[in-house]
Amino acid sequence: MECGVYISDKSGNSFANLFRAERILYDGRSAYQKIMVFDTQDLGRVLMLDDFFNVSTIMEAFYHEPMAHIPLAMAENRENVLIVGGGDFGVAKHVLKHSDVRQLTLCELDPRILEISREFFSDWAACEKDPRLSVRVGDGAKYIEECPPESLDAVIIDTTDPFFNASVLVTDAFYTRVLKALRPGGVMIQIIADFIFYRSAWFDVLPVARRNFPTFRPVFVPIPLYVTGCWGLLLAGRRKGQLDISAVSQAYLDRIGGVETMTPDLVRGWMSLPPFLEKEFAPWLEK
Amino acid sequence: MECGVYISDKSGNSFANLFRAERILYDGRSAYQKIMVFDTQDLGRVLMLDDFFNVSTIMEAFYHEPMAHIPLAMAENRENVLIVGGGDFGVAKHVLKHSDVRQLTLCELDPRILEISREFFSDWAACEKDPRLSVRVGDGAKYIEECPPESLDAVIIDTTDPFFNASVLVTDAFYTRVLKALRPGGVMIQIIADFIFYRSAWFDVLPVARRNFPTFRPVFVPIPLYVTGCWGLLLAGRRKGQLDISAVSQAYLDRIGGVETMTPDLVRGWMSLPPFLEKEFAPWLEK
Repeated sequence: MECGVYISDKSGNSFANLFRAERILYDGRSAYQKIMVFDTQDLGRVLMLDDFFNVSTIMEAFYHEPMAHIPLAMAENRENVLIVGGGDFGVAKHVLKHSDVRQLTLCELDPRILEISREFFSDWAACEKDPRLSVRVGDGAKYIEECPPESLDAVIIDTTDPFFNASVLVTDAFYTRVLKALRPGGVMIQIIADFIFYRSAWFDVLPVARRNFPTFRPVFVPIPLYVTGCWGLLLAGRRKGQLDISAVSQAYLDRIGGVETMTPDLVRGWMSLPPFLEKEFAPWLEK
Repeated sequence: MECGVYISDKSGNSFANLFRAERILYDGRSAYQKIMVFDTQDLGRVLMLDDFFNVSTIMEAFYHEPMAHIPLAMAENRENVLIVGGGDFGVAKHVLKHSDVRQLTLCELDPRILEISREFFSDWAACEKDPRLSVRVGDGAKYIEECPPESLDAVIIDTTDPFFNASVLVTDAFYTRVLKALRPGGVMIQIIADFIFYRSAWFDVLPVARRNFPTFRPVFVPIPLYVTGCWGLLLAGRRKGQLDISAVSQAYLDRIGGVETMTPDLVRGWMSLPPFLEKEFAPWLEK
């Protein structure tokens, strides 16, 4: 290691990721969380929330593209989309690449995140100019409750880890609201956890998903910034059979344009569980 | 972090992975390298070579299974296999699951690694009892030169990183020897680098691969122990068209039995490059 300022995320008791900060741009605390922004040599600018690395400007597409383009491929329509969290505008930017999205609402709990993003992640926040985007400050779970029934085509839940701070977002009560707000062909995607250090989070989530969603799949995507480099999303739909991988076709990706991390074969791989995990998750997976 | 002994690998100037060692079992130096063995809470026992995390007992299959089962799927025969390096016996154990492998030679440079493995990774080293395995101590590059021409079905190069210590193994001279030793339907696989922190290693390797092999593909597999969690292998064959992904069929995996990390869809994904990488690598890839 060279001398310098090294920043570790909270990680666990037995491991940590360290990055050398070239420059610390922000180090503060909002009403909701600790927030830090720093520049690194290899992953660009990093946003850190409550001591967890959240997102980096280099390789951002590995997280943001699947979060946007997988659910939008499988939803029956793409008119009305809601992002819960996502105040860094990273996912929003990719959702707005879809010309058939007419309305995108971003409901971020912490207004400070929005300010930080406008200042330090301005390339992403630039998508605010798109008139299809409405930014709201507030509790996403409450917002969904107030949405007219069957009004949303896709709900993208891009929050801090649901096994720590955002645990209210993996409950029967929350999923019931999501299902009510989704149109019949609507889809939800939500960040969950990796399958090594936080595997136990899956055993909390899967039974709740099973009880509530007619169809769902874990999707493990490569996220180089996160420990183990492989992070899991929960993809769920209102209609059985609608999570059809072939919807992420080359034609679909070409239509979006400029997609950096996804191919149909890569997505098919992300949606295929390693056999050891398939076995562990089997009690809750669709047969 | 809890208090305790934290061990970082060499990583780069801007990042590091830290593991808390529950117990340090070995810390020494052979004629060739520094060697450390320690136990961790989440990844089991870790072997560290020249300050790089090399392998862990938990999640070992993510590295060892693709290294063994991908080339053996695509080789025309599986009778005679050579492992260069691999003194931890991790790959050997998986190769020997193939009943049609008649002869497996493991050529390890550093005899101390073999001793360490027998002591601290005895579950893996137990495969030494298999009469099909011959263990040799020596320089793998020299050994290949002495192999009869067209005698090997698969060459598996499981060494320390070729962009540091093992750079002699990514040269025209070495690949020429490999090609000479391979049977016409023979296949090579070799560990290279990730595509973020060590991406430059690929730009050294790809032109050499291009000059020498009739067919080759990068394969990016998830390896949770390594920084970024996604590491690249070079898969190469003597015959154009032979790197046919469909050879890794469910029937093939079922025949091996007990495969933990591979499905046909996962392998197809590992062999599909993200578009941004496909573009960067395009000058050297097969059209």
